[in-house]
Amino acid sequence: MVEARLRVIYGDTDQMGVVYHANYFRYFEFSRMEFFRARGGSYREMEGAGFMLPIVEVSCQYKAPARYDDLLLIRPKVSELRRASLMFTYEVVREDEPSTILCTGSTLHACVGRDGKPTRFPDMFLRLIEQSP
Amino acid sequence: MVEARLRVIYGDTDQMGVVYHANYFRYFEFSRMEFFRARGGSYREMEGAGFMLPIVEVSCQYKAPARYDDLLLIRPKVSELRRASLMFTYEVVREDEPSTILCTGSTLHACVGRDGKPTRFPDMFLRLIEQSP
Amino acid sequence: MVEARLRVIYGDTDQMGVVYHANYFRYFEFSRMEFFRARGGSYREMEGAGFMLPIVEVSCQYKAPARYDDLLLIRPKVSELRRASLMFTYEVVREDEPSTILCTGSTLHACVGRDGKPTRFPDMFLRLIEQSP
Amino acid sequence: MVEARLRVIYGDTDQMGVVYHANYFRYFEFSRMEFFRARGGSYREMEGAGFMLPIVEVSCQYKAPARYDDLLLIRPKVSELRRASLMFTYEVVREDEPSTILCTGSTLHACVGRDGKPTRFPDMFLRLIEQSP
Repeated sequence: MVEARLRVIYGDTDQMGVVYHANYFRYFEFSRMEFFRARGGSYREMEGAGFMLPIVEVSCQYKAPARYDDLLLIRPKVSELRRASLMFTYEVVREDEPSTILCTGSTLHACVGRDGKPTRFPDMFLRLIEQSP
Repeated sequence: MVEARLRVIYGDTDQMGVVYHANYFRYFEFSRMEFFRARGGSYREMEGAGFMLPIVEVSCQYKAPARYDDLLLIRPKVSELRRASLMFTYEVVREDEPSTILCTGSTLHACVGRDGKPTRFPDMFLRLIEQSP
Repeated sequence: MVEARLRVIYGDTDQMGVVYHANYFRYFEFSRMEFFRARGGSYREMEGAGFMLPIVEVSCQYKAPARYDDLLLIRPKVSELRRASLMFTYEVVREDEPSTILCTGSTLHACVGRDGKPTRFPDMFLRLIEQSP
Repeated sequence: MVEARLRVIYGDTDQMGVVYHANYFRYFEFSRMEFFRARGGSYREMEGAGFMLPIVEVSCQYKAPARYDDLLLIRPKVSELRRASLMFTYEVVREDEPSTILCTGSTLHACVGRDGKPTRFPDMFLRLIEQSP
């Protein structure tokens, strides 16, 4: 399991003293990068090979707030893999209380080629996904 | 119907040349402010009276990209009103092509009091919601 | 004089209850767009013609905080125009107290062509700058 | 010397394919957190003790762009320490090319107490600053 680590800065919080809800999607993105890196690849390489994973749909469920200076662990997982789309789901916890889930989320991605049209995932990508980190 | 108007800046885009997906939630927030203002109230006043609407859950469906310099209209609507929760839904379009929906989204809010506990919506708030802008 | 109007959202604030310092540079960018639009042009058009204005240097001086729900006026001005560079300066005030400056700032821009190299400002641009809005 | 490490996400870039200029101030903030942590303290503790370091003035000079997926090192340093103010300066480099400075910057901070008024730095803070990480 990949756990992306990230410390909450002032710039991530809002005047309620908690992480602004939209910023979790930045955290999710960061964890996707770590997901690919943990498997020896990178999303940048995939783009270099002519494939992109634009986001089609997202969701997030907020259960408890994250705060300034918290060290967060974001756990991304491929929960669904189809011919030309892919869903990541995420859990966010604090490192010092890893059993309490602060929020969960999902991002649904299409696989598109250089022409912007949906295309099958390339084999290099499937191998990356399927291997253990 | 309230339409919040907003022009896309460079800082909202990413290297794909489109609005970064997380930023739509900022747009949605902006449109909620306009929603209350169009009815003669404001979210700040509500907070002043001891009520807050923290976000419990969000979703967004991306259909077509918004780009730099686009003038966007964001249309917020209360789609569900319960004793102590409320759902807003949103449509985003470009002003020069208002019939093509770029994205839709939703934000589910709890109503909580100063103690952070769920509470009924105050009457002033219900009157605000129910009136036409 | 151009005054770009913008309302502060939650997402712009931090846990001190004030606008996070980095976000003023987003506001400055927004006001530059309005500056060009007020003169009948747009930065997008200029890019279309093959010229860009990358930022070389910025500064900001914070005098008093802006807060959630404040309606801000951002006043951009070309304070220096050279062969291949340009400085904008800015003042930010609240609409309801326009004589109290909340912050001032500056952005220094190079003019570069499609090859990324410094180039003279095109005439269309100089005419835009010099005209009154 | 403290070097805060941070990988550039899509959400940090703009449509020019480079890190949006305002985001470097977020990076600077992140490096300040690491600066205090490397010395066994934290800015959160300092706030807990009733002291804050609001930002009074900032600057940034951009020399070469940072891009998506770059692993950046941000090097913060206290360049000036007065009775009730403090300047940090920063250098940003890519980890794989640490001798090329991408940008430099500075943030000037006041030291204020719970009442928001300027105050001398507390001794705990001075000890933190002066010690080697």
